[in-house]
Amino acid sequence: MNEKILELLEAKKYSEIGALLKDMNPADAAVMLEELPEQKMPIVFRLLSKELAADTFAYMDGDAQEILVRGFSDKELDEVMEQLFLDDTVDMLEEMPANVVKRVLRHVDADTRKMINQVLNYPKDSAGSIMTMEYVDLKRSMTVEQAFERIRATGVEKETIYTCYVTDSRRKLEGIVTVKDLLLSPKSEVIRNIMETNVKFVSTHTDQELVARELSKYDFLAIPVVDAEERLVGIVTVDDALDVIQEEATEDIEKMAAITPTDRPYMKTSVFETWKKRIPWLLFLMISATFTSGIISSFEDALAASVILTSFIPMLMDTGGNAGSQSSTTVIRGLSLGEIRYGDVLKIVTKESFVSLMCGATLAVANFAKLMLIDRVSLLVAAVVCLTLVVVVLVSNIVGCTLPVLAKRVGFDPAVMASPLITTIVDAVALIIYFNIAKLLLGI
Amino acid sequence: MNEKILELLEAKKYSEIGALLKDMNPADAAVMLEELPEQKMPIVFRLLSKELAADTFAYMDGDAQEILVRGFSDKELDEVMEQLFLDDTVDMLEEMPANVVKRVLRHVDADTRKMINQVLNYPKDSAGSIMTMEYVDLKRSMTVEQAFERIRATGVEKETIYTCYVTDSRRKLEGIVTVKDLLLSPKSEVIRNIMETNVKFVSTHTDQELVARELSKYDFLAIPVVDAEERLVGIVTVDDALDVIQEEATEDIEKMAAITPTDRPYMKTSVFETWKKRIPWLLFLMISATFTSGIISSFEDALAASVILTSFIPMLMDTGGNAGSQSSTTVIRGLSLGEIRYGDVLKIVTKESFVSLMCGATLAVANFAKLMLIDRVSLLVAAVVCLTLVVVVLVSNIVGCTLPVLAKRVGFDPAVMASPLITTIVDAVALIIYFNIAKLLLGI
Repeated sequence: MNEKILELLEAKKYSEIGALLKDMNPADAAVMLEELPEQKMPIVFRLLSKELAADTFAYMDGDAQEILVRGFSDKELDEVMEQLFLDDTVDMLEEMPANVVKRVLRHVDADTRKMINQVLNYPKDSAGSIMTMEYVDLKRSMTVEQAFERIRATGVEKETIYTCYVTDSRRKLEGIVTVKDLLLSPKSEVIRNIMETNVKFVSTHTDQELVARELSKYDFLAIPVVDAEERLVGIVTVDDALDVIQEEATEDIEKMAAITPTDRPYMKTSVFETWKKRIPWLLFLMISATFTSGIISSFEDALAASVILTSFIPMLMDTGGNAGSQSSTTVIRGLSLGEIRYGDVLKIVTKESFVSLMCGATLAVANFAKLMLIDRVSLLVAAVVCLTLVVVVLVSNIVGCTLPVLAKRVGFDPAVMASPLITTIVDAVALIIYFNIAKLLLGI
Repeated sequence: MNEKILELLEAKKYSEIGALLKDMNPADAAVMLEELPEQKMPIVFRLLSKELAADTFAYMDGDAQEILVRGFSDKELDEVMEQLFLDDTVDMLEEMPANVVKRVLRHVDADTRKMINQVLNYPKDSAGSIMTMEYVDLKRSMTVEQAFERIRATGVEKETIYTCYVTDSRRKLEGIVTVKDLLLSPKSEVIRNIMETNVKFVSTHTDQELVARELSKYDFLAIPVVDAEERLVGIVTVDDALDVIQEEATEDIEKMAAITPTDRPYMKTSVFETWKKRIPWLLFLMISATFTSGIISSFEDALAASVILTSFIPMLMDTGGNAGSQSSTTVIRGLSLGEIRYGDVLKIVTKESFVSLMCGATLAVANFAKLMLIDRVSLLVAAVVCLTLVVVVLVSNIVGCTLPVLAKRVGFDPAVMASPLITTIVDAVALIIYFNIAKLLLGI
């Protein structure tokens, strides 16, 4: 596709490009444009029909949008801004430098500017920051026919028309009514009688992850957002919830691998940015790991007496780390999906203790067989290694499952307590257990 | 809430419970019922109004549904089955033992039974297995008014009415039209003129993850599913896509922590099941890790000559593992979101090389300072440790970023190539690098 467009562009066959683009889906057109060379992209963008251009613009990433906006004439900027939904405009502005933001804000009408500023002022990742103010509002005294008239009159500019919000004169949310309800009711029916009054809503400061979870739990197409006075100020639509869930999962996964999260896709992050995201954790974990050197040094005599003990250190540390990351990962994901609460901590520790004793025993048996039959070490050394294994797995699992819960309790993100940090803690603990058991059993 | 209900139940105040439940949201009612003691739950379920009962049933988990179905009279089963959407029925049947499935299938009409069997036959996690067949279909020759009549006549039983599908006499998908389009068009307009003909669809065998990604990419409320002859057989709705995205993220996270994934939430998995999900990987990784013992043993002489070298083993192994898991995690997530493709492998390796050299250098400088100023080791030992650090981080990052891409290429799940496996590989590599650099620089 892109080669063909570049060829046609070379040959200046603009109308053929236009014909090619005419029936494209805006999401596809956005991907295609982003993959074009930077100086060709604005040319091809101008060949899109007016409506497709605005829709496509909304789907493009921040970098591409910035290139386009910088090149837009005032008239072009007006046209795109007019078509854009409010939440897409805000998304775009959040990623742009201040001078571009100023220029864009000059090109929207006063009402829109006020709304944009309001949304931009909500904390990052709150319901207020991802909501749109473009919804259909109805009054309880309207008939179904009047409701349809209102939808027809204002619907074009609304992000979703399928759930309508019934508010009183002070904008307090009284109920919701879906287009399905309206279609299935007689035209003369009054909204008051068909609206659902048990409305689920979130507040402007609710975390976006929780908003997405509510939408998903109740299978809604949109959820209303209210301010501190319970007045309706906007809605969050399901397509944004989908994005939030993807983003939050990526963020969790990155944190769990000791990476500072970012919104930018990997292929678009520079080497320097990637370094910046990874080095703090690497440094911190490396420095923490140097404590293990101290532990080993302090047991130097024991190690010198039985050199073979050294060779099992990596296996014991790795297994402890693996067991710890299994339990911490399970608990972190459970917390982030809302399946696990602080009150469950005792139940979790009990369960993890049993699981880890079973795991530890299985591993010890397998290792004992290998040590005696293949490595042919002495019975006492095998006993030291296998006993350590059981204790290390038990301790690792308990550390792994409690730390995330405690982190959440004191307001930290549990995802930070994942494998790398657990591994570092578990390593130190494993060494201490190992050497003490060795001293005890081998008498060194 | 639950305490109050149990109290009222004790006092046999059934009508008060009914009043309490009347306005509950079905998703909330489902959670409440699941938390009741097993023998009380069916009693409270029977106090729900008929419509709320069916909706609530759809939101409950497999275990609770099974308890209810086993206790249902034939009449109750009929009532619930009649109200349930097809995809919810299939979800339920997938988790039930064969004898319950048989009984349920006896209680639905022949058409529904045929459809259920069809959906049950699609491969797990395919579009076919999560789709519903309850959609509104229109003909291209209909007017807007006729379309609304059809929606009113059939809409109650359809999962979504907001996107309608235009099919020809052989059920081939010709276009889609939204209720918004219909509402904003004159009543006499013909569907042919307002339908969108550039329709995005998936096939019955498309993986559910890809289906969810398409829905999210195009911001659809539903996506049509076609069979091999391009005939429309069903739709996947956005609420199911939300569930799929959550599920798939959990699955990825579990695999990345070396846990065999499961659909069941943590708090409902038994100790034995949890053990079964974790022990294969623990065993496999432990056995892989025992190779490191061999490596250490073979360098025993070098270690005996310079005992201090032992104390840096854990730090070097940990740092390698952390660096490797950072790059593997980034790449795995990129692959799973479709941001990274096989063709990018060279670009990725180049980038990771630069990032890891920068990270390695930073860590080496920090460590060198610590070794010289705090630990006061000899310059040569410090050089060995820091040089090893740079090489290990470089190798770890390259291993970490290539293995997931290669795994995907040969058809494995890249998530399996995450931290634990990478750590084990990197540990062995780190030791070999360390001892060889030590031999070279220290001449031992």
